[in-house]
Amino acid sequence: MSHPSSEEQRLRAEVTRLRAQVAALEAAAKPGLPAVSPLAPKGGFPDLPPVAGVRLAAAAAGVRYKGRDDVMLAYLAPGTAMAGVTTRSATRSACVLDCEDKLHLTGHDAEGAAIVVNAGNANAFTGDNGRKSVAAITEAVGATLGVPAERVFSSSTGVIGEPLPHDRITAALTQMKDGLQPRNFRAAAEAIRTTDTFAKGAGVTLDLGGEQVSIAGIAKGSGMIAPDMATMLVYIFTDARIAQADLQILLRDLTDRSFNCITVDSDTSTSDTLLLAATGQRGPVLTPGTEAHDSFREGLLKVMTDLAQQVVRDGEGATKFIEIRVTGAASDSEAAIVGRSIANSPLVKTAVAGEDPNWGRVVMAVGKAGVTADRDRLSIRFGDVLVAEKGWVASSYREADGAAYMKNPELVIGVDLGLGDGQATVWTCDLTHAYIQINADYRS
Amino acid sequence: MSHPSSEEQRLRAEVTRLRAQVAALEAAAKPGLPAVSPLAPKGGFPDLPPVAGVRLAAAAAGVRYKGRDDVMLAYLAPGTAMAGVTTRSATRSACVLDCEDKLHLTGHDAEGAAIVVNAGNANAFTGDNGRKSVAAITEAVGATLGVPAERVFSSSTGVIGEPLPHDRITAALTQMKDGLQPRNFRAAAEAIRTTDTFAKGAGVTLDLGGEQVSIAGIAKGSGMIAPDMATMLVYIFTDARIAQADLQILLRDLTDRSFNCITVDSDTSTSDTLLLAATGQRGPVLTPGTEAHDSFREGLLKVMTDLAQQVVRDGEGATKFIEIRVTGAASDSEAAIVGRSIANSPLVKTAVAGEDPNWGRVVMAVGKAGVTADRDRLSIRFGDVLVAEKGWVASSYREADGAAYMKNPELVIGVDLGLGDGQATVWTCDLTHAYIQINADYRS
Repeated sequence: MSHPSSEEQRLRAEVTRLRAQVAALEAAAKPGLPAVSPLAPKGGFPDLPPVAGVRLAAAAAGVRYKGRDDVMLAYLAPGTAMAGVTTRSATRSACVLDCEDKLHLTGHDAEGAAIVVNAGNANAFTGDNGRKSVAAITEAVGATLGVPAERVFSSSTGVIGEPLPHDRITAALTQMKDGLQPRNFRAAAEAIRTTDTFAKGAGVTLDLGGEQVSIAGIAKGSGMIAPDMATMLVYIFTDARIAQADLQILLRDLTDRSFNCITVDSDTSTSDTLLLAATGQRGPVLTPGTEAHDSFREGLLKVMTDLAQQVVRDGEGATKFIEIRVTGAASDSEAAIVGRSIANSPLVKTAVAGEDPNWGRVVMAVGKAGVTADRDRLSIRFGDVLVAEKGWVASSYREADGAAYMKNPELVIGVDLGLGDGQATVWTCDLTHAYIQINADYRS
Repeated sequence: MSHPSSEEQRLRAEVTRLRAQVAALEAAAKPGLPAVSPLAPKGGFPDLPPVAGVRLAAAAAGVRYKGRDDVMLAYLAPGTAMAGVTTRSATRSACVLDCEDKLHLTGHDAEGAAIVVNAGNANAFTGDNGRKSVAAITEAVGATLGVPAERVFSSSTGVIGEPLPHDRITAALTQMKDGLQPRNFRAAAEAIRTTDTFAKGAGVTLDLGGEQVSIAGIAKGSGMIAPDMATMLVYIFTDARIAQADLQILLRDLTDRSFNCITVDSDTSTSDTLLLAATGQRGPVLTPGTEAHDSFREGLLKVMTDLAQQVVRDGEGATKFIEIRVTGAASDSEAAIVGRSIANSPLVKTAVAGEDPNWGRVVMAVGKAGVTADRDRLSIRFGDVLVAEKGWVASSYREADGAAYMKNPELVIGVDLGLGDGQATVWTCDLTHAYIQINADYRS
């Protein structure tokens, strides 16, 4: 047996090297999407406080996904006040219409209530079958938990236009009833994910009138996020004691300051729903104008803002979290329009993705917004860097400073219109190749 | 000298094969953008008719690009009526403001006129320097060609916020004056390109009152295209005889039916300008209400629609040309809002890029538009394929039919709202990785 020649040895090493190079190039050609958004909150799902009168469960009903939970059930004790806001989309889903009807009913607060949510199928644009599925699910939940169907609120999220196999959900109800537990927020949040890369939760504990009151919420959302009119799927629970009418007013007001300030892709979902359940088991009665109501309001806004920002942090393909602060507008509403015009501009979002301090595109987005603006009074800041003022690039601005700032994963774009006191803040993310990758073949 | 062993020969062949594989993978990892849009009109730049009283020239002034023409000059004979529409952006550029001022001037029609356009620098958001550059250029053009500066219209397209080196343009004027030629449309169209992958031109010859009248136009535009308010850079020339006031009314009306029906990326430019020069050297006087005026109107609309569609066909990264036909709306304006909501939806545009017949996203985009719509009266067609009706997927619909249709490079998405007689057509393109690639590092 002859020894391999030195030439053979050299060629073998070359083949090994080239094979490794081919493998690396092939892997790079099919980039895996990140398992978890790089903008996810550090530390994972938060430790949420228990909310008296709330128990949750999740189950794998096999609606669409395999091998994971896809339904959550929340049981709410008798005496719970329910408030909610839903999308104003003209093509909103059967479960959204059903929630709207039920939120307008009053006089049932003495009885228990429930929320049931599935992921994988939105039950939207499913005609009369959609209504039938909602009725079947809410009636089965009512019968299982011993609450009136009028107090069972349902949501569905996922593909639009396919019939919902609601029998798979109702078949899982007994198992979920047996699994109901307090503090089961994480399992519930995991179960309602679709393209979300992480489960979203936020909570606070407040001292109201010497008693400890909890607020805990969960949310899902990643794409089709532009809740200009309402919000995505969000469920917030509190054991505070507050009248339904006051709760509803508070929720609508705070939605405008939290979920209505975010956008991922300017596309508004058919299924956006935010429900807030107050079980009334802790603390003083919260009457508007009191100090306790103010504290509750502040705590609730904190939870809602946290959840809203988590949805942006999980924006499809996002690599940058962007806060757009508009000041000096003629009014708050004009400031919000300018903020949204910048946040939804694909040219601004791609520039941020490319870490390009392309402030000219911010100028463009202000200009197209259609509200009062004066080119020569406008100033733009990237973080603390003054970029443009008085109708031109700032004399102090150095492109290197702007470029260095854009490398940050969290950016603040400040725009002052120099006209009045109107202001607004909008949160958004960048537009990357991964957004195209996720959405060009979502159904395949 | 020994023969190479068979093992050596095998290894050499393997090395050769692997090297080729590495080269192919490396090439695929850095995809070149297509040199010319796959949606470009077949046959290249059209053979445009001569327009009496119009001469054009182009030059390489080195404003930003190297080794290519980047300035065009058009000389218009005495007697030319000038009409125009410009962007309503609140941050519109110095040259747009200057054009607006000059379009409002009257009484100069007896004198010659000129149009000068540069590519590479938009002279937008350049403060007082912007105004000075426009004055320097238009005065120099006026002096060179012997026309009043009030009759010199300028445009600039390219990067926003950088000072325009206008001396490079004025230095090229004498050369351009000497190079002025009739029918030089193609050179002019080439000179004003930025990210455009092909030069855009369209023309017709009409028989008006027994005399031949020409209309020839050129355009540039590829990204930052959502001329909801006006249009991008377009210059149309005709030797027809028509009063300035009538020309202006006609142009505004036809803009709403052509350039205002397109969108590439929902971002409206700071520089959109459409100028129409009628030299008055051919045919009868075109008085509104006459048959000749109607024929002219029809020919002009044809040229404008052709140019508008060419801009969409050159949409950044486009691989699909999409016509969105909305019918059955409560009014034409509501139909246009719905059409634009679909055309600007990133989720609809990425679905088309992925050849996914995802009609659920069309439903979503109708729903978010904010106009009257009834989910259960809505019907959706992809080409001739009825996809959805009466609030759900059509019973005749087969996913394979939808998927096969989406493979076409030219698509028609039909939406009937089932409410009234309102209708609108919007033209757009898909949203692809190449759009991200082009815009995430435009300035670098």
